[in-house]
Amino acid sequence: MKKYSVFMMCLVSIMSLCAQNGNDWRRLMSREERVTMHSNVLGTDRNYTVYLPAGYDAEETRRYPVLYLLHGMSDDDRRWYDRGHAKDVADQLISSGEAVPMIIVTPDAGGNPAEKWNGYFDMKGWPYEQFFFNEFVPEIEKRYRAIPDKGARAVAGLSMGGGGSTSYAQRHPDMFSSCYAMSALMHLPEADASKVAAGDKTALLTDAVHRLSCVEYVKNADEKTKADLRTVAWFVDCGDDDFLLECNMDFFKAMRNAWVPCQFRVRDGGHTWEYWNSALYTALPFVSRNFKTVK
Amino acid sequence: MKKYSVFMMCLVSIMSLCAQNGNDWRRLMSREERVTMHSNVLGTDRNYTVYLPAGYDAEETRRYPVLYLLHGMSDDDRRWYDRGHAKDVADQLISSGEAVPMIIVTPDAGGNPAEKWNGYFDMKGWPYEQFFFNEFVPEIEKRYRAIPDKGARAVAGLSMGGGGSTSYAQRHPDMFSSCYAMSALMHLPEADASKVAAGDKTALLTDAVHRLSCVEYVKNADEKTKADLRTVAWFVDCGDDDFLLECNMDFFKAMRNAWVPCQFRVRDGGHTWEYWNSALYTALPFVSRNFKTVK
Amino acid sequence: MKKYSVFMMCLVSIMSLCAQNGNDWRRLMSREERVTMHSNVLGTDRNYTVYLPAGYDAEETRRYPVLYLLHGMSDDDRRWYDRGHAKDVADQLISSGEAVPMIIVTPDAGGNPAEKWNGYFDMKGWPYEQFFFNEFVPEIEKRYRAIPDKGARAVAGLSMGGGGSTSYAQRHPDMFSSCYAMSALMHLPEADASKVAAGDKTALLTDAVHRLSCVEYVKNADEKTKADLRTVAWFVDCGDDDFLLECNMDFFKAMRNAWVPCQFRVRDGGHTWEYWNSALYTALPFVSRNFKTVK
Amino acid sequence: MKKYSVFMMCLVSIMSLCAQNGNDWRRLMSREERVTMHSNVLGTDRNYTVYLPAGYDAEETRRYPVLYLLHGMSDDDRRWYDRGHAKDVADQLISSGEAVPMIIVTPDAGGNPAEKWNGYFDMKGWPYEQFFFNEFVPEIEKRYRAIPDKGARAVAGLSMGGGGSTSYAQRHPDMFSSCYAMSALMHLPEADASKVAAGDKTALLTDAVHRLSCVEYVKNADEKTKADLRTVAWFVDCGDDDFLLECNMDFFKAMRNAWVPCQFRVRDGGHTWEYWNSALYTALPFVSRNFKTVK
Repeated sequence: MKKYSVFMMCLVSIMSLCAQNGNDWRRLMSREERVTMHSNVLGTDRNYTVYLPAGYDAEETRRYPVLYLLHGMSDDDRRWYDRGHAKDVADQLISSGEAVPMIIVTPDAGGNPAEKWNGYFDMKGWPYEQFFFNEFVPEIEKRYRAIPDKGARAVAGLSMGGGGSTSYAQRHPDMFSSCYAMSALMHLPEADASKVAAGDKTALLTDAVHRLSCVEYVKNADEKTKADLRTVAWFVDCGDDDFLLECNMDFFKAMRNAWVPCQFRVRDGGHTWEYWNSALYTALPFVSRNFKTVK
Repeated sequence: MKKYSVFMMCLVSIMSLCAQNGNDWRRLMSREERVTMHSNVLGTDRNYTVYLPAGYDAEETRRYPVLYLLHGMSDDDRRWYDRGHAKDVADQLISSGEAVPMIIVTPDAGGNPAEKWNGYFDMKGWPYEQFFFNEFVPEIEKRYRAIPDKGARAVAGLSMGGGGSTSYAQRHPDMFSSCYAMSALMHLPEADASKVAAGDKTALLTDAVHRLSCVEYVKNADEKTKADLRTVAWFVDCGDDDFLLECNMDFFKAMRNAWVPCQFRVRDGGHTWEYWNSALYTALPFVSRNFKTVK
Repeated sequence: MKKYSVFMMCLVSIMSLCAQNGNDWRRLMSREERVTMHSNVLGTDRNYTVYLPAGYDAEETRRYPVLYLLHGMSDDDRRWYDRGHAKDVADQLISSGEAVPMIIVTPDAGGNPAEKWNGYFDMKGWPYEQFFFNEFVPEIEKRYRAIPDKGARAVAGLSMGGGGSTSYAQRHPDMFSSCYAMSALMHLPEADASKVAAGDKTALLTDAVHRLSCVEYVKNADEKTKADLRTVAWFVDCGDDDFLLECNMDFFKAMRNAWVPCQFRVRDGGHTWEYWNSALYTALPFVSRNFKTVK
Repeated sequence: MKKYSVFMMCLVSIMSLCAQNGNDWRRLMSREERVTMHSNVLGTDRNYTVYLPAGYDAEETRRYPVLYLLHGMSDDDRRWYDRGHAKDVADQLISSGEAVPMIIVTPDAGGNPAEKWNGYFDMKGWPYEQFFFNEFVPEIEKRYRAIPDKGARAVAGLSMGGGGSTSYAQRHPDMFSSCYAMSALMHLPEADASKVAAGDKTALLTDAVHRLSCVEYVKNADEKTKADLRTVAWFVDCGDDDFLLECNMDFFKAMRNAWVPCQFRVRDGGHTWEYWNSALYTALPFVSRNFKTVK
């Protein structure tokens, strides 16, 4: 056993990296940052978190595909990183080649639902979907070296964000090459009308999810819509202990009946972060291989 | 690199084994045999294939749990071994400890459906289920050193044999500790009455699967029946491209509604041998950890 | 789609659980607690974290096997739970039956190495191994309903704790049924003698790891020692990007040459928490199936 | 449950496919064929087996990347298909998108070693490597719609063919974008000189493997050679019970010391077809994502 070989290897490695990069090895590493932007549509500031892959800072003209990674109800943009460990997973998969270098971005669409607006849809007094498509995506594609193209955008999310991802890709199929839905809230029963009328934030969210039911959308799709849906690569992933599994099975049945190709996986687990963290190991390779115009 | 270390290792290994076993190393290996038995119930001879784990011949008084591994329509008892590679999988998993040493046995319940009786149920002129429980299981437990106990029996199968496994464990919950259904034929629509009356073998099979629908059985279960179902460990495994996935989802929904714990997995794949071969890697550990009174 | 079926299911579930348990559903859940004990051997207080499986509080006389789960250098007892998510993984695997209900316990053997003693071995002025076997294990087996038996104890750990686990199981094979080493520090080159003499904590740790090299221990084992090693089930798991992979390969070669059965896995990844979190999905089933006298 | 939905789905599916393809649905399926070619270099006819992906016949001008999939000692070109089930695996992975549509081709380099020449290297009287690069690859690229480019060629193999793959990619790095070695014979001790002189086929093979040791090749590589090696994506996959694991670990160590990126996996298993069949599930995605100029 060679003495100190481990230490030598590390040392040589860092030196070698620095030599190529003006001694600033940090420029070679991936990083994550939280940014605040102003939304005119919503009339307020909004946070988002961005993952920039290794090499982003060093290769100053290279453009990247973007994954929009949506969080769940009552969470915010930090949770995919603080508990989902999205940066750690992306670093590993990009390093081994299972995922392509990409920008990952999570907008804030939540917080305590008693106080904060949750959800990805337009609701009376909170046109979040307008914000997303008219302000947020343009902001990302301007601020970062994103490839502004359907073939280089993907959307994924968990629970409320899984439903959000699916509905976004359903109604904006020209925007995304693929959609990966985890433990997705694919539909909800009707909301309490009086609460909706009273402007209760949770009731408005329930109402939006009900109106935009991902399952009904597929069931009611005409041929043109189905053809559009087939331009997106779909993946549905839900645990066998998840209370949302039934609506995910309903969604998959609808997709199958509509002849829209869709991957479907049921793995062991519930509506938990262990499930979503491990789902990233499938999701990032999936969106990677469905990115077009990049490799 | 030490020269010939590989050859030395093999040589020493074989010598060491022989020294312990009267020089007959074959007694240490697993093996598989095909046996013919006579059935009075069916009025004919029937084949079956048996896997005996490594050590079976050498440890002359040890008793083993038994997995009844059922084949699909138009196949026979050889297919789980010739194409499912059940012996190879069992050897590996038992060697690494992921499965416990067990006897695996596959009865013949098929062949060309135009000529041969297929299926695991009693049909007019072919009381196969009576044969299975009254003649076949007793034969196995007499001829081999099986542990004759619910805690040491499991049943698994693919397609027609997945439905057969499930229905056997549903209606004989005192017989099996666990049931693993692969790509299972959980129910079928009603058969053509005239063909049934005419004694058409395929129509009679369809009729039996319809009458004994695994899905309806759970839906119609009373509390006593549900309590019995909960004494069996259940696992349902079906590919996302399988044309039988829908009835497996229906079955799982029914089990969930009946509060009968059931593992459910949907992996990538169709109604194929690649799926069933890989399912063994989950099935053998599952039945192993649900065997009682053995370890 | 039945309305509110999800909510009903949750409600019924909680009501049913409460009915059985004096309305205190918390008694049915797993939980984790941090405890402080006094060590006479070390002359100071020490923390540890304990995971108690679902049912521990409700089944008041049931005894459980124990996994000692060791952390790495510069970490402490909280890290396996705060970042390794050991509770979440254990909950899932025990729920699905892939792991048996067990107590998991992590002692504190670290912190900032400039200030705190790190490591699992006896060092001049810090007889940690004496503490572990003479005070800590007895404390656990007295305070909790542990099964005080080799067949019901396992040890596992990462990095410094992977080496600690291996060395503990090597030199105390009567104590553990199995050992699962992750990204293990199996040996180290000689420490700087002057720093050792000066009582430098890191140098003393290096010296202990060097003296107790897991690789050399196997290489130098006599037949009696090898026979003892064979009474433990071994598993070595290390990433292909880990700077410690080489010493893990050396260890495995030594085990193979000594004819001590040992599972070995190299998966994608480095010396990271993503690796160790995912390793738990293999480790908990492994120690479970090697527990004796329990099922 | 809708009656006959399964049958309807199948029927509609087949009708729909036929409608698009002049009623000849077979043109849409993947297929496999065995071909005999004449080798002037070897002075004899040689067989090979080719897998053509779904769509090959229908899309008459599309060109495909090629995986050269090498068999092991004493086997021939049929074994990857008859026992490795390469067609079934490729069909599934291409269908789900985990692998790109590709041509897979296995030349015959074996048979009973007492009678037949085994191996991928030039031996006295049997210049197989010349045949492979000068006749076989050109034949494939002429006869089939292959993309004749480094970025669209990959090589993989098991045992003797794993060593062959590695050595081919080492000494012809301009020919292959990636190399996936399974349970590879990376080197052998020196052959018996008298047997070599006597023209013994097995001794000549041993001699070739020894002379072209994949481990020594990396150890002895100069900077130019290392730079060439870095233009190939490498993957080494070997079971923990495989008697060849040691030389695979040696190879990986050499690659790491030479700073040539290389994926390394050790999974459960031995030198068995179960291992190689399952390795295809990693190998086909790996070579797919390393193909350039195609997507």
